[in-house]
Formats: sequence, structure tokens, C-alpha cells
Amino acid sequence: MPIAPAIVLVEPQLGENIGMAARAMANCALSDLRLVRPRDGWPNEKAVANASGADAILDGARLFESTEAAIADLTEIYATTARSRGMIKRVLKPGAAVAAMRATVSAGGRPGVLFGPERTGLNNDDVALADAVVSVQVNPGFTSLNLAQAVMIVGYEWFQAGADTPDEQLVATHTLPATKAELHGFFDHLERELDAAGFLAVPEKRPSMIRNIRNIFERAALTETEIKTLHGIVTRLVGARWPGKGGGRGGGEGGNGVA
Amino acid sequence: MPIAPAIVLVEPQLGENIGMAARAMANCALSDLRLVRPRDGWPNEKAVANASGADAILDGARLFESTEAAIADLTEIYATTARSRGMIKRVLKPGAAVAAMRATVSAGGRPGVLFGPERTGLNNDDVALADAVVSVQVNPGFTSLNLAQAVMIVGYEWFQAGADTPDEQLVATHTLPATKAELHGFFDHLERELDAAGFLAVPEKRPSMIRNIRNIFERAALTETEIKTLHGIVTRLVGARWPGKGGGRGGGEGGNGVA
Repeated sequence: MPIAPAIVLVEPQLGENIGMAARAMANCALSDLRLVRPRDGWPNEKAVANASGADAILDGARLFESTEAAIADLTEIYATTARSRGMIKRVLKPGAAVAAMRATVSAGGRPGVLFGPERTGLNNDDVALADAVVSVQVNPGFTSLNLAQAVMIVGYEWFQAGADTPDEQLVATHTLPATKAELHGFFDHLERELDAAGFLAVPEKRPSMIRNIRNIFERAALTETEIKTLHGIVTRLVGARWPGKGGGRGGGEGGNGVA
Repeated sequence: MPIAPAIVLVEPQLGENIGMAARAMANCALSDLRLVRPRDGWPNEKAVANASGADAILDGARLFESTEAAIADLTEIYATTARSRGMIKRVLKPGAAVAAMRATVSAGGRPGVLFGPERTGLNNDDVALADAVVSVQVNPGFTSLNLAQAVMIVGYEWFQAGADTPDEQLVATHTLPATKAELHGFFDHLERELDAAGFLAVPEKRPSMIRNIRNIFERAALTETEIKTLHGIVTRLVGARWPGKGGGRGGGEGGNGVA
């Protein structure tokens, strides 16, 4: 596994949050959890109860007496803080920060991210230990960001940056997308029946009406099975209007269309 | 305020998660919370205890008997689900989904996002109500994503897409970045003293040594105050080596440099 950033929780107060942070880390393929003076000691039952099975991360968590000690083996430190500090630091959004961390890892470095106590956030001395600040932009009217949520946002950006999933895809598991020939076969069927029904009887309107109808079904990204269903629907509707007709014409094109 | 997506929690089980979801919504400037058959009834004390002050969102939450009723006034629905469903749907990553939602809002539409119960996620009937699926890519080895964390990820992407913060910036509150003239004034001072101390005595090495030293301080993005401090440090160090010399030369360049 490539090296992922260490997550350093400085004086975390609530075991619940440590557990939820570990769960978020597991979601994001992070595993190196470091705790600096957790308020309620360690191990912590509430952490386990809230980790939803991310026990390996809690079991592997390392305890430190100081932030300096917790980051001693790391090469690049990011401090998460919403407040400005009167220090000059690079301030990165989470997406830019994980890009920098990935560059660090590629160059053989070891990044780590500091998160402060729930009530106060990181103090100035801890921020001063960092090479850069990671700032999660939130609603200025409600800036109280939960500790585990902050870990999730950094972890989410980290995992996203490594995932090679396209931004958009069509997923089909039990059924295949229809070919254009199948789709056009349905158009032929539908338009033939609409012509027969007089729905497309005004010649000057016919082309635009057909375009509009086709667009509806084009957009639907239909499957093979759905095309059969649609054939069946048209056939049955026609059959209902002209008893004895629909069954004969539609039978070869998908029966009743129930998949 | 521009219209933001509605957050629809379908059969949420834990009040804690409803409260944390409301808090995440407040962080992300979302306010329209809709609950479909919350397991433990409504209102819920544990929701309030976990909302960290996002009470207005909980107070404004609307209760519905069915998912259909909850989304009746919306125009475009996104279902959050990790599992594939044997349906053809557009599957979007959160970033792409919020881009689509913003386009919807610009066009006068009203998007909504469905989140399923903690234990099972959305059922197929609810997913079928959606125009598209939002899929948060997580570690395949640990896919158990907390409900409020899922709300946060969608909300975070929504808020990011609207924020006009640059990816990276330098923030200084009480102090100004140094001008290049100030920086170069320090280089002159330092190099003069290094020359005097014989540190740069090998002529063929001098240029590269100076470059290396300058790079260190260039990278540091120094402030005015820090430049003064550095002048003071050099002056004092020289003064320690040659008692009676440093004070006279460094005095006009920043004194002892303590800001």
C-alpha cells in the first residue's frame, strides 16, 4: 500500500469522535492514527463503540505526550484550522492540500495532518509546527465543524484524488444498455402506430413531433429489456384500441414486455 | 439566498445521526431537511443534543409518510447509494452531482438528495424515484459510511462549488509580507557578515552557496517583522563573536528583532 497521510488528533476530548474519525479513516483507506494526550485516556470504550468495526485502526493508534513527538518521523505537516492566526502560512483548501500530500508521498516524504481539540481547535504552537494550513471552507454563519467530519473531508479528498473513477458513468448490473438499432426499431414501431392512429397527421408538424418524441426516449438511456417492454406497451395499447390487431403485430417484438 | 438542495433522510434510525446531519447541513449552508418516517419519532432529543446549535434546521424539518410525498415539490432527485441496483441510472460522483444540481437551480429547478436508513441504505423503490445516483467512492475494504458523514460529503461539495476561495492563499492578519527589497536587504546583511566570517571564502563555491541560502529564505515567505527579527539575529550573532561590533552595525536594521 502506498504511504497515506498520518492523522494526528491533538488532545481529542470525546471518545465518540475518535471512533468516528477512525471509521472515516477506514472509509478513506487511511490507517495511521496518532493521539496526543486524549482527554479521557486510552483505550476508550466509546471510541470502539463508534468505530463501526474500524477496530484495527484504533488498535494500531499510537499515543504521544506532545505534538512534536507525534510528528517526529513525518516530513510535512498540515494543520487544520478555520481561524486565522497572525502567522504567515500557506493556506490550502483540502483538495489542494491532498494534491500537495500526494506529491510529497511521490517524492518519498511522509505527510501528516493535525486536528485540534473539539472545543478550541489547534493552539498557535501546534499550528506553528505545520508547513501549511488546511482550511475547510464552511458557512460563515455556522463554522462549528465536528472533529470526525473534518477528518472525513480531508480523507475524502485524499481518497478521491487516488480513485480512478470517472466523474460520471452508467452502471448496469443485470441488464445491458440497448443498441441504437434496438432503440430505432422501437421508434419505427411507435411512429408506425402513431401514424396509423392519426397522431402525426399534420404534415408540417410531423418532423418536429417525431424529434420531440425521440428525444424523450433517447434521454432515457434505455436497456434492452426496457425496449422490449416499450414494444410490448405499444403493441398492447394498439391491441386495446383494435381488438385482434395488436397481438398479431407486436408478438414478434417482445411479447408483453414484462422482464 | 439561492435555492440549495433539499436533504431527504428516508427512515433514519438514530437521532444522533439526524442531529449530526443537521449540523453538517448548517456547515454547508443547506437548510431544507425532510424526514421520511424517522424510526424513533419526531422531535427527537438525541437529534437536538447532536446538532451543536443547528436547531433552526431541526425545527424547520418536515415530516413525511412516504418518499414520494417528501419529494413531491422537487424537480430533480439524486439517490445516494453505494450498491449497484440492476437499474440503469446515471451514477455521479459527489462533485459532478453538485455541478448538475447547480445547473438545475440556475434553470429554476429544485434538486433534492435522498439518503437511506443507516443499516440498509435506500431500497430499490426509492432509488427508482431518482433521476440519478450519487455514489461516494470509499475504500472497498470498508464501505460502511456514516449517514451524517454522507450528508457532509454532499454538502461539502455543494458549498465548495459555490465558494470563491482560491485553492491556495497566504493569510496574514497582524503582519504584512515583506517586500523583495526588504528581503534583499536582509540577504545583503547576511552575506556581508558571512563573507566577513569567511563562510563564503571559496570563490568557485560562493555563487551556489549564496543561491542555496537565499532559497531557504525565499521559500519562507517572510513578513516585515520576521525580516527585522532575522536582521537582529545576524547582528547579535556577529556581536557575540566580535563584542562591540554587532551592536553598532545592526542597530539601524531592526534592533533585537523582537516583534
